[in-house]
This record gives sequence, structure tokens and C-alpha cells, in this order.
Amino acid sequence: MRMVDLIEKKRDGEKLSTEEIQFIVNGYTEGTIPDYQVSAFTMAVFFNGMTESETADLTMAMVKSGDQIDLSQIEGIKVDKHSTGGVGDTTTLVLGPLVAAVGVPVAKMSGRGLGHTGGTIDKLEAVEGFHVEIENQEFIDLVNKNKIAVIGQSGNLTPADKKLYSLRDVTATVNSIPMIASSIMSKKIAAGADAIVLDVKTGAGAFMKTIDDSRDLAHAMVRIGNNVGRQTMAIISDMSQPLGFAIGNALEVKEAIDTLKGEGPEDLTELCLTLGSHMVYLAKKANSLEEARQLLENVIKDGSALETFKLFLASQGGDASVVDQPEKLPQAKYIIELEAKEDGYVKEMVADEIGTAAMILGAGRATKESTIDLAVGLMLRKKIGDKVQKGDSLVTIYSNFENVDAVKQKLYENITVTSEPAKAPTLIYEEITE
Amino acid sequence: MRMVDLIEKKRDGEKLSTEEIQFIVNGYTEGTIPDYQVSAFTMAVFFNGMTESETADLTMAMVKSGDQIDLSQIEGIKVDKHSTGGVGDTTTLVLGPLVAAVGVPVAKMSGRGLGHTGGTIDKLEAVEGFHVEIENQEFIDLVNKNKIAVIGQSGNLTPADKKLYSLRDVTATVNSIPMIASSIMSKKIAAGADAIVLDVKTGAGAFMKTIDDSRDLAHAMVRIGNNVGRQTMAIISDMSQPLGFAIGNALEVKEAIDTLKGEGPEDLTELCLTLGSHMVYLAKKANSLEEARQLLENVIKDGSALETFKLFLASQGGDASVVDQPEKLPQAKYIIELEAKEDGYVKEMVADEIGTAAMILGAGRATKESTIDLAVGLMLRKKIGDKVQKGDSLVTIYSNFENVDAVKQKLYENITVTSEPAKAPTLIYEEITE
Repeated sequence: MRMVDLIEKKRDGEKLSTEEIQFIVNGYTEGTIPDYQVSAFTMAVFFNGMTESETADLTMAMVKSGDQIDLSQIEGIKVDKHSTGGVGDTTTLVLGPLVAAVGVPVAKMSGRGLGHTGGTIDKLEAVEGFHVEIENQEFIDLVNKNKIAVIGQSGNLTPADKKLYSLRDVTATVNSIPMIASSIMSKKIAAGADAIVLDVKTGAGAFMKTIDDSRDLAHAMVRIGNNVGRQTMAIISDMSQPLGFAIGNALEVKEAIDTLKGEGPEDLTELCLTLGSHMVYLAKKANSLEEARQLLENVIKDGSALETFKLFLASQGGDASVVDQPEKLPQAKYIIELEAKEDGYVKEMVADEIGTAAMILGAGRATKESTIDLAVGLMLRKKIGDKVQKGDSLVTIYSNFENVDAVKQKLYENITVTSEPAKAPTLIYEEITE
Repeated sequence: MRMVDLIEKKRDGEKLSTEEIQFIVNGYTEGTIPDYQVSAFTMAVFFNGMTESETADLTMAMVKSGDQIDLSQIEGIKVDKHSTGGVGDTTTLVLGPLVAAVGVPVAKMSGRGLGHTGGTIDKLEAVEGFHVEIENQEFIDLVNKNKIAVIGQSGNLTPADKKLYSLRDVTATVNSIPMIASSIMSKKIAAGADAIVLDVKTGAGAFMKTIDDSRDLAHAMVRIGNNVGRQTMAIISDMSQPLGFAIGNALEVKEAIDTLKGEGPEDLTELCLTLGSHMVYLAKKANSLEEARQLLENVIKDGSALETFKLFLASQGGDASVVDQPEKLPQAKYIIELEAKEDGYVKEMVADEIGTAAMILGAGRATKESTIDLAVGLMLRKKIGDKVQKGDSLVTIYSNFENVDAVKQKLYENITVTSEPAKAPTLIYEEITE
């Protein structure tokens, strides 16, 4: 087999076999196929796409390129959730304890990542003492005991994906649905998920800006999962404005606590109940989505979701008292209100730009070397469709430096207030199961 | 400027500026832009093409990437001819002395090349003593004196094209009209041509197998030339069967001598007169194509074309007596006839496969390291449309080894004789001037 012939095949719109895709992925991982051939190949994929079976083959070839996590010692069906990213997305913090309280095993491997705020681990480290540096066996034992544990990323998972992503990043071939889909799914599958619930974001703050692109990506991922024997479904949810109110690490932990108490923002709560219902259903802890939702609402009402969160924090060294005394979380020095300049209705809150404002405060990492300030961030006081009066707070800014003019300017530029009534965006657009 | 943004631009079908194309070509030549970005770029060009001005910019950027030959000391308009390659193409050997005899300066830089037979230099070296290792000044003086000289390739011409071609070859991006056109034209322009006549071959033995592709390539090259101030025209000529009768180095020299005497094969003669007329006209040695053709026919008839050939050979150390005594050219040990197995008409002679048969005899180089046997090759005794009787010779095989079964088999497989009369293919399809 020669790589040049496989590039030509893809270039001419022909279908590659399983063996041919394995040849490419293995050769690239091992270094016998050079970057310049793979980048020509990825550009051909950009133009000609990949069939459903090619995409599944690419995914599994990347899964097999490195270690695979063995979660077989954990009882029950391990359902993982993945979000395609967004601003102020606190769902993971809420969903873990929420579905664990219903008996769904949550064995989460998580990273720190770049972005507007930290990754899940960064957020959890806002709780004093909490740590994810635990041994594999302890991790498994904790999941079996508490139904939830989080471990830092370790091992050599999907090295082919890492190498391929770096190459795509510098050759303008990131934006290809089959390659995005297989990149995401290979990581989930290598991390040991039996079933996968996907939250595909759409809108200004999402990687996919249009509903059509989001739908295509959702279908591609769901088909990969189902083709390789991992039951998978996806929800397409709004990311035109940030989700919930909090954007920032400690602020999101506090918001997660509120939500687990049943006192969280409406949109965040609804999205968690929807995603959670699918997780519970796929884990076979309920016979219908309605029953699953009822179970989740019950564990919020009776306090057991919140208790599970405390147990989870305490089991990994965290000070669980923050749940009842959130003032123990890191606090910012300066609390500044962004006041509305006129009466009207919020028409637009551009999610990614508002996320960037939080990053300017220090809530997220721009590069791997950046350090995060866990205390800072933003609390939205209004959301799209809300009525405002001049002088009302639109956003509360939590900062550790006094001059936040740049942050204020960015926020004013990206929050539009108009005189006509505006409608809140749809939260959940579609559910995709095939 | 960042290469990744330029790849994206081309990927999205936008037009690149002159500066952007220079940035790519210079960066690649100097090594500041890596192979893997350029291969993604060339694949994007494969899919989205290049505009006329982008193609001209690419050509000139490649010309400027290395040395440019200065022919300004040569009097008159230097018209170069280029053929896109084929089998048994003796036109260069004929055209040089032919147009020189009319006063058109022929300053030919030539290579050895790979292929079914040798390059022009290899063929000329079938004449004992002939050599192309001459100094630049001697070369120029010879052209001014005799109107014709050939020099071996020297200097660092179009290094960007060399590097780009090697990369395209292993990334399935050779087959792109704007890149083929700019590759050919950059070499001609760097070699100092004022005007260019192109012979674009079409059919089985050509790089372009269809008339449509050949026409597209011809237009692309003509437009490059005219856009960068070198008057350029193209002819599309048949290469479904080999041109002329001879395929082999000494055999083609003999055929060129015959043609310069007015005793050559009809198709070769006609093509040389057509291409030559355009060369003479572009060199402003005639006021019309008709007048140009008349001048060429005259120098054949009065023997001055042949005299020019002798002068040319002698001036570069060659034994010019071969012109009158062609038996002095290298002779093969075995002369074997390929007999027709039945009565009928020649319907097909697949040019590239017949070329391969000549290569098996040793007439051409498969790799840079191969050595060429100047004496061997094939003489076609019949061409498409000819009537044959069982036992007639279809081809005479000139070999230095006795067992030519493999060659015979290849020839039989690729020469079709049918009972119905067959038509000779059109020789010249089109003339393209814009």
C-alpha cells in the first residue's frame, strides 16, 4: 500500500477501506507516513468528506493508536457526556452528582484545557483540598462506592488524534465534520465509555455557528458511536448567549451547588435535566425518558443530589463544607456592576465575546502556560429577552484588579439593549439519535 | 502574513494576491514554510484551481526563485518550442536546424530526462564527438554565427518548481492544470525565451489523455505567456499513436536527417512545418504563417536546412559526415521484424505502450541511474489506417539482445489489426493563441 495512492483515492472521491484507513493512521502515528502526505490527505477529506463507515474506521483506528481505559471493574453501564464547548457551561459539574445520585456510574477523566474558563478539574479545584491525582484502582473503587469520581488525564490516549489535530490546526483543515466528529468520539471511546450523550452547542459561542452545521456534526458523531457499538445520542442546544449566569471557576461551582439544590438558572437546570434523562435512560436506570426525568427531579428535591456532591468532594480531599458555606470558595477583591445605560429589552449577548471578557479577568487560559484566577469571572444579571431599566445591573464583574474598563467596554459592545421586546432563544433545538 | 491563512483562503475559493503567492513560493524555497503546509495548499489548488492572474503570479514567482538565463547578447527574437512529451517525438531535432536555416535564433538549453527514449542531448550524442559541455559565451557566439546551438542544463533554474514538483509527485497533486502550466512555463521563461511555441500532445501517449484536458492546459500556458509578456501560442497534436516512424535515439537522428531532406514521415514533416511556421512568424522572419511555411519548405528543398544541421553538429564537435552516411550512427546487433498475423487494417497503435516496448530494448531511462543504448529502438512500418497483409512487417525491432519475445508480445498487444478499414487520426486538432 502506498500513501500517495490513498491520497489520490480520497482526492477522486473514492471510498477507503478499513485496512487503508488503518494504514494511514498507524503509519502517521509511527512516523512512517510524513506530515506532508497526511496534510494533503486531510485537505482532500475537507473537500470530499468521508462516508459513515470511513468515519467510524478513522475513529477506531485513532482509538487503537494508544492506550484504552479499562472500566470493566465498574458496575453498571458507564455513560459519558460530552459538550462541544461553550461559555459558562456548568453542566458537567451539575450532571455528575445528579445522575450519580440516581445510580448511574460516573467515571470521569478530565483535563484542564484552554478557553474562557478552566476545565472541569480547574473548577473543582476551587474547592480547597480537592485533587484528581488518584490511583486508577482508587478511582474505580470510588466510582463503585460513591457512583462518581474524577481523575486527571493520564496514559497515552489517542496519540494519532493529537498528532492529526496539531497538523490540521496549521493546514486549515480543522473545519471538517468527519474529522471533528472522529476526534471527539475517539477520545470518549478510548476513555472507556459504554454509552455517550452529546451536547452539541450552536450559535455565536459555539464551534458550530449554524444549526445546520451543528446537526451535521451531531449526526456524524451519533453514527460513529452507533457504528462502533457505543449507544450514542445528541442534543443540539443554544450557545448564542452564555448558559446559566456564572462564567468563572468558583462562580460556576457555586452555580452548580444552587442547581443541585433546585435553585439554579432555568436554562442550566432544564439542559441538565434533559441531558441527565438521556444518561439515566441509556444507563438503563429508567424505562423511559419521563421516568428518568422524574428520578432526577426527585434527587434534587430530596437533597440526595447535593449529598452526592458533598460525598464526591470529600472523597477526593475536598472541603465539602463549601456546599453549605459557598463563601469559603475563592472570593474576588472587587465586585463591580455593569449598569444598563437605557431602558429596554436585552436583544443580544454574544456568548464568545462575553467569554473573552471573563478571560481578560483571568478566568481562563489563553495558552498552556497561563495560570487561572479561580475567584474571578462574571455573573449575568439579565439574559436575552429580559426587561431592563436604566441603572439596572446587566452583569456583575468579579475581579482581582480594580480597573476593569476594558472588560466593561467589551461587555457593553456585546450586550445589545433595544426598545422593542426581544424573545429568549430556544434552549434545546433537537434530539438526534441516528 | 501566515501560511495557514493563505491555505484557508485558497480552500475557500478566494483569490490570492501577487504578494501572497510570492510569500508562499519564497517561503517554500527558503524553507521557512514547511512541506506539510504547501501540500495542503496544493491540494486546495487541485480542488479550487487558480485564476489566470494567480497562475501568472505563481509562474513568475518560480522564475524569480532561481537563476534566469540572459540571452540578450543573441541577436533577434529567441523563440523556444516546448512539447508536453510523447513517443517518438523527433520534432526538436528537426525544428532546430529548420528554423535556424530561415534565420530564427535557436538557443536551446536541454536535458537528458527520463522516458521512452532519451532527451534531445542523448539523441544528439548518437553523433560521434558531439557534446553540449560548452561555455556560456561560446554558446552565445555559436547561436549568433550559426543561428543554432545546444547547451546542457546548468545553473539553478526554478528551484521552487523543482521542490514543488517533488512534493506534488508524492501527494497526488501533480494533475492540476494551473500547476502543470506554471511548472512548464516557468522553466521556459527562466531559460530566456522571448516567445514560446507549445506543442500540447493529446491521446494515449500524452500526459493529457483527452482533447478537453489538452485544450485547458494549452489555454493556461498561452495565457501565462501572454500575461507575463512572452508571446505564446499552442498547437494541440495527436499522440494516440507514436509520431513519425522512429522510436530510439540513433533511429530518430536518422529520421530527422530524412525529414530535413524532405524525405521524412508525413505526420512528422507536417507537424514540423506547422510548429516551425509559428516559430518563424513569432520571430518576425515572415509577415504571415503562409510566408513562414514557404520559407521553411524552401530551405528543405534547397538543402540549406540540412547544411545548417551539419554546421551545427560540426560546431559542437560532432562528426557531420553521418548526415550523408547515416550507417555511421550506432547500429544494433539484431534486426527483427514483427510480422502481421493476419490481413486487415491497422486500427490502433497505443503510443505509450509502444514507447515502453522501446524502453525494454534500452532506448530510454527508467531511473536517473539507467544507461541508454543509443543504437536500439523501433521503426514503425505501418501506422493507423494502413492496409496490411499477413506476413508484412508492422514494426522493425532494433535490439542488442537476441531474445525480444517480451518486446514482441507488448507490441502485438498494443497494435490492433481489424478487417474493417480504419481512419488515420487527425494530426493537428487546434491552434490556441489566447
